[in-house]
Amino acid sequence: MWRSGTGETATIFYEDFTIGREFDLGSTTVDDTEMRGFAGRFDPQWYHLDDELAAAGSFGAVTASGWFTASLFMRMYTDAVLSRAAADASPGLEELRWLAPVYAGDELTGRLTVLDRSPSQSRPGLGTVKLSGVLAAANRETAVLSMRFRGWFGMRGPQRT
Amino acid sequence: MWRSGTGETATIFYEDFTIGREFDLGSTTVDDTEMRGFAGRFDPQWYHLDDELAAAGSFGAVTASGWFTASLFMRMYTDAVLSRAAADASPGLEELRWLAPVYAGDELTGRLTVLDRSPSQSRPGLGTVKLSGVLAAANRETAVLSMRFRGWFGMRGPQRT
Repeated sequence: MWRSGTGETATIFYEDFTIGREFDLGSTTVDDTEMRGFAGRFDPQWYHLDDELAAAGSFGAVTASGWFTASLFMRMYTDAVLSRAAADASPGLEELRWLAPVYAGDELTGRLTVLDRSPSQSRPGLGTVKLSGVLAAANRETAVLSMRFRGWFGMRGPQRT
Repeated sequence: MWRSGTGETATIFYEDFTIGREFDLGSTTVDDTEMRGFAGRFDPQWYHLDDELAAAGSFGAVTASGWFTASLFMRMYTDAVLSRAAADASPGLEELRWLAPVYAGDELTGRLTVLDRSPSQSRPGLGTVKLSGVLAAANRETAVLSMRFRGWFGMRGPQRT
């Protein structure tokens, strides 16, 4: 059997990623304390940490590190898809865009779209799926993050043990 | 004056990012507890959290979330460059590759290379710099992460106040 990302029996396979299919990734609210804690550890710049400087800057307030926003996307993707999918590793991202600043209290909603897919030539029983992910700040009606990436997924096809 | 990422007076400007120049980003050791904590919050998959399943998997042990590795790169880049540079926001990544698994205890060394640069057409006094970043696990002599991205940097040129 294929395990899902959380170790359970997978119920979403390569075959289920039909081109054009969309997955609702749900929503999450940006927590102020966590946002600042992440920046303090991984991206300690005044844009993300210093209220006084940020208030006078172009965004008007401290904003989330882009890596925090991307990490929130990953969690939403894991909860909504990978926890049920026969997912192998991802080789990386084709593109990532930070489209607009993210602020504490923003309600982020996520969506995943299948762009393309093809069976792996080198790894029988696996296929590559090209995905597009978007996060939007629903409270401000603006997209804040987009990315295109590939993932490997197991096929329902030849059963594995 | 231009502020650096940490709010001090900047000492590295657009003009200093000459094509081909390399920046040593220093090194950091992957902490087991932090690595698992990050995965638990942002990427809760068994590859990153379950010792028993991971030991039987293709990597032989739990591995870091790719977003944790990328976040460690960001911290090294901030400490070595952005803390001194007249850095504006980054629009995003052109490419990111997770080249090999990262394990707890790995000593990661970072390097940044200037690929190209051009003055901004729309924002006088700023320029776009194309950068290539690489993280390697020095203890295993293997590259683990590469990315290509752009950053906007202020020019030493026309002074700003």
